[in-house]
Amino acid sequence: MLKNDLLLKALRQEPVERPPVWMMRQAGRYLPDYIKLRNQYDFFTRVQTPELATAITLQPVDQVGVDAAILFSDILVIPQAMGVEVLMEEGKGPSLPKVIRTKKDIDALFTDHAKERLDYVMKALQLTKKELDGSVPLIGFAGAPWTIFCYMVEGKGSKTWSQAKSFAYNQPELTHSLLSKITDITIDYLIAQAGSGADVLQVFDSWAGALSPADFQLFAFPYLERIATAVAPHAPVILFPKGSWYAIEDLCRTAASGIGIDWCISPKDARKKAGVKTLQGNFDPAKLLAPIPMIREEVKKMIDGFGKQSYIANLGHGITPDVPVDHAKAFVEAVKEYRS
Amino acid sequence: MLKNDLLLKALRQEPVERPPVWMMRQAGRYLPDYIKLRNQYDFFTRVQTPELATAITLQPVDQVGVDAAILFSDILVIPQAMGVEVLMEEGKGPSLPKVIRTKKDIDALFTDHAKERLDYVMKALQLTKKELDGSVPLIGFAGAPWTIFCYMVEGKGSKTWSQAKSFAYNQPELTHSLLSKITDITIDYLIAQAGSGADVLQVFDSWAGALSPADFQLFAFPYLERIATAVAPHAPVILFPKGSWYAIEDLCRTAASGIGIDWCISPKDARKKAGVKTLQGNFDPAKLLAPIPMIREEVKKMIDGFGKQSYIANLGHGITPDVPVDHAKAFVEAVKEYRS
Repeated sequence: MLKNDLLLKALRQEPVERPPVWMMRQAGRYLPDYIKLRNQYDFFTRVQTPELATAITLQPVDQVGVDAAILFSDILVIPQAMGVEVLMEEGKGPSLPKVIRTKKDIDALFTDHAKERLDYVMKALQLTKKELDGSVPLIGFAGAPWTIFCYMVEGKGSKTWSQAKSFAYNQPELTHSLLSKITDITIDYLIAQAGSGADVLQVFDSWAGALSPADFQLFAFPYLERIATAVAPHAPVILFPKGSWYAIEDLCRTAASGIGIDWCISPKDARKKAGVKTLQGNFDPAKLLAPIPMIREEVKKMIDGFGKQSYIANLGHGITPDVPVDHAKAFVEAVKEYRS
Repeated sequence: MLKNDLLLKALRQEPVERPPVWMMRQAGRYLPDYIKLRNQYDFFTRVQTPELATAITLQPVDQVGVDAAILFSDILVIPQAMGVEVLMEEGKGPSLPKVIRTKKDIDALFTDHAKERLDYVMKALQLTKKELDGSVPLIGFAGAPWTIFCYMVEGKGSKTWSQAKSFAYNQPELTHSLLSKITDITIDYLIAQAGSGADVLQVFDSWAGALSPADFQLFAFPYLERIATAVAPHAPVILFPKGSWYAIEDLCRTAASGIGIDWCISPKDARKKAGVKTLQGNFDPAKLLAPIPMIREEVKKMIDGFGKQSYIANLGHGITPDVPVDHAKAFVEAVKEYRS
């Protein structure tokens, strides 16, 4: 049914002529047409209005030529659906004025009807799916429980996440109870996304890399594993715990179809750890600021390192607002022209 | 001559009864006596006044019981000595108003007489050495060329260092010329520190972990290697490129006596990569916020993982201001009580 099913083939480890390519945050701040909408509507209006979310989602497909669309949304819609206020100040990142401190705070969270409160996401997926008309697959996503927990306890971005970790070390039972609640809601949410047209589901554990390998096993991995097991029957899952290179082998044993990695591991090392499992990544987003010939050369080296099978070309983290559009295009085109 | 030479023994891979212990940023913001001086004198007054720097350096030796003193100073004294203005706003991190953009900017940097301009560091080392009276070794330090380059090009701290990287990708020749200049000055500076009483010299490559393994080999490793080779005949060197777990094997082949690691690698993995080379680290600073019994238990696990020989107990990054002093003491005491 899909005209371009490279992404799905790569996730099923089927042979492809060249790897599929998309970019994390591809629907975003480096695109002039996105900036226009940003100047007209505030962040959560863009996220919660299906027509706007769809328009933004389609921009990079039409303008940059990626092999997949990823719904324009945010990982913090989950705390919102649990009744937690989330503020998004342009250029400053999110803040959650009322942080979790006690059992009472956790008991007060909504755990039912989250799906209904996130119905705007389902509407946006359905509309996007219709607009895409089978051209490329549509990716849905959610934040991983550890990362959502970090924001709910810390209340904002952090270099060290020391408050979130302190909570985890001092109140492990409450921590696991909150992580479990987030996990349950996230599973329902991702399955609903599959039912609304998402072909692939990615789980972003953006702050997994703040954890030691032992703490990752305690606070992050079990919840990623539970999500992968529950969601995989509905759509292929990509787990992306940024920075957790040490867990690649364990992640490959989950029900996930793909594992995302950042740029702080060489393609060859990652391939060695992952075996034939599908890997996604790992171009340094800052390298999109390099001269175009260097971008093209580095893309070739990267694919050579991973091998073109069971591999999805992508960045190692979200594209930054300072990347010129023609550099983003050069990245995508270099993957498309790859021949081994 | 030293009453406590555990640190030197560990760096020479000589047998010890228990590992030495110190903490990065041990002379700093978690100590009430430091806060008093901070409220009286601004940052660079504290750094540039030998009596103040010495007093601050001695505080954790007397109050927390660490096995080494590390001079209170800053890595950005090197750009200062090159003629670059550095501002330090309490709680906000450093900023360098005039960033490096062109060859002209690099040509305008002072490269001679840096040592004379850093004479206050030598005076502080001499005074501290005298005050220590042989009780514990004294550590001197410098920032690594890549990290200093990052600040000089970016002008302030950054999550992505995309301007520094963009400069490196677009102007590789200028990049290497600036990195070389920083390296030359840093070598002179570290040798002078050894001549002024520093028993050990640590090189902090705080932003090495922002680089891919391939870029680390281009922009960070060669300069770390040059420094280790040049400085090792004068005093044992510890290289700490934070986040660069992938380079442990290469770092172990340099003339450095010790390699620092952060907490994002397990002690066993690190030991496997390093063989018998001395490792330093890797307690998560946020874990100092855990209950004291957990700190003690985790210290034991950590030393068991590294083995007590050829190992220096430390944090994986600087201690944070929110750590209670008795938790820092518990960390140090747990190492001192370690018996395998």
